[in-house]
Amino acid sequence: MSIGNPLIRLKNINPKYQVSQKPLKDVAYYLSGIAEKNHVILGETITLMESTSPSKVVVARKILNSIIETPRPERLRIGVTGPPGVGKSTWLNAFGYFVSSQGKSTAILAIDPSSTNSKGSILGDKTRMDIIGRHSDVFIRPSPSGSVLGGISRNTMESLLVCEYAGFDYICIETVGVGQSEIAVAEQVDINILILQPGSGDDIQGIKRGIMETADIIVVNKADGALTGLADQTRYQFQSIIKYLHHQLPHWEIPVILTSGLQSKGFTEIMEQINKFSILSSASGYISEKRKDQGLKWFEQQGLLALQHHFLNNPKNKTKYLEITDKIKDGTLHPIQAIDLYLDLLG
Amino acid sequence: MSIGNPLIRLKNINPKYQVSQKPLKDVAYYLSGIAEKNHVILGETITLMESTSPSKVVVARKILNSIIETPRPERLRIGVTGPPGVGKSTWLNAFGYFVSSQGKSTAILAIDPSSTNSKGSILGDKTRMDIIGRHSDVFIRPSPSGSVLGGISRNTMESLLVCEYAGFDYICIETVGVGQSEIAVAEQVDINILILQPGSGDDIQGIKRGIMETADIIVVNKADGALTGLADQTRYQFQSIIKYLHHQLPHWEIPVILTSGLQSKGFTEIMEQINKFSILSSASGYISEKRKDQGLKWFEQQGLLALQHHFLNNPKNKTKYLEITDKIKDGTLHPIQAIDLYLDLLG
Repeated sequence: MSIGNPLIRLKNINPKYQVSQKPLKDVAYYLSGIAEKNHVILGETITLMESTSPSKVVVARKILNSIIETPRPERLRIGVTGPPGVGKSTWLNAFGYFVSSQGKSTAILAIDPSSTNSKGSILGDKTRMDIIGRHSDVFIRPSPSGSVLGGISRNTMESLLVCEYAGFDYICIETVGVGQSEIAVAEQVDINILILQPGSGDDIQGIKRGIMETADIIVVNKADGALTGLADQTRYQFQSIIKYLHHQLPHWEIPVILTSGLQSKGFTEIMEQINKFSILSSASGYISEKRKDQGLKWFEQQGLLALQHHFLNNPKNKTKYLEITDKIKDGTLHPIQAIDLYLDLLG
Repeated sequence: MSIGNPLIRLKNINPKYQVSQKPLKDVAYYLSGIAEKNHVILGETITLMESTSPSKVVVARKILNSIIETPRPERLRIGVTGPPGVGKSTWLNAFGYFVSSQGKSTAILAIDPSSTNSKGSILGDKTRMDIIGRHSDVFIRPSPSGSVLGGISRNTMESLLVCEYAGFDYICIETVGVGQSEIAVAEQVDINILILQPGSGDDIQGIKRGIMETADIIVVNKADGALTGLADQTRYQFQSIIKYLHHQLPHWEIPVILTSGLQSKGFTEIMEQINKFSILSSASGYISEKRKDQGLKWFEQQGLLALQHHFLNNPKNKTKYLEITDKIKDGTLHPIQAIDLYLDLLG
């Protein structure tokens, strides 16, 4: 189903959208702004949470504690993953507009790609996302990739909580599709949508190790224009593969869906499958179990990183650590000798 | 090809095999014993390296340093992974005998299963392995699962170095097929053999996330008796799946091989494929690159664990850490609040 060209919808700009340069506010200001889905205050809150300045950290913690202590209906957390170049940003724009046309709202948390090589093209995406970001039902936020584990930062978790408190119906986390970020995202969402290229069915290894098995829904995007035929063929290839991938959620069969982000096609089917998954997995307790497991794993991983960060904050330790890894890289130190040096460092 | 019933070959027992209860020896004793492939001294060395007593640690480090500083021809490191119950121990026994019948030697490092639930049946395997362990060309060593990362301990790395120094032609690392151990093993070997059950082609998800993609060779074992037909069918299923799994090593097509560990069938083909992989991957520099990457990754992971171990060695920290994780598990503490408590602990 087509919902028209998203770019034409630009006139529908949220009146709440305005430039703000105000100083630090109190907790109530942020909480009420978030609850109103005010895009400016949502943005301010997330920026505040990214800050490392002590006074801001105090306020940020208070906001987070209030949010965590205020029970809100659970919202579906949707991961959108896939290799670079499959059109994830355009796809998410179209998804956000489609959801909006159904009278519902979406928050899109994009992992900031600033530290990757593909800077240029993704900056283009960001501009596009910024435009749609002014639409009232669709809030877009690029997350910084600082202090990340496999591309998913502490900040992404916080942004997620803020958006749940705001009451967005769907919260999407988008990766740039590099490194381990897809697997990390899959470990933080309720449902994971893997977006692939027409023609990618010929080389699953190229899609990256373990990624196929994180998918709850597989999308073959760019099913438009000259690629329509190839997209259809690719869908058949994936359908023949996924029949072997039995899902952990009983009775769930991974669907393979054709979409065109550019032409906003295929989103009715996407929503049907998302809702079907949501109902099936909520009823069986699958999501609440999954979230508890994810939470513990997240804490353990972040705990390790926090510990390392604390340790390497000491310049002496950092210098020594880099010396050791350099020697491993150039082959002059065996990893097992390296560990002994490292243990000596711990004392 | 069949090489006869391994149990009949028991008479071929290594005269070097004898019980030894001697106290701590000097470095030269261990080094010369290892170089002679003396099973008793190999076992003593590995036990010494597992010790945490300070005087033994000093000797162990000296041995390891001598080994690392003495260049030896590289030996192929073979991972043998797969779910519990596929007959890995029997398969490895048959593999060891086959290699021996070709005039070559094998070391088998089994990850000790003592901490898993499947204790009973695997103890049976251990007894069987202990019998073959007396055969001169096949050295078997169960590794302790203490201080492990995903089932692969520091000790496994040390045992691997000892066996390379001893000059075994093939060094196999076997997992029990639980948790993340298969992926951890795949990250420490040159070639990974995934052993599967007849009938398992119907449920790849049941095989575990990401495992399929760690395989360099896929084996359908138990291709004997009543399972012969099903095994053949399963092989076809995997062949249709793996054509989509393009391997990182150029020109390598993942073979799917039928074997019977019990009847020692299929090992000629296994050896042909192992040798083919070895030649192809050595020539292209694939193995040396892979080992360097693996070494760095191993150090980084072990470094994190060492740091955590050091931190939790403080009883106050340990109590607090367990308090936090318990609260996450019972849902009374949000992971993000848990991290804040943890950061407070670091100071």
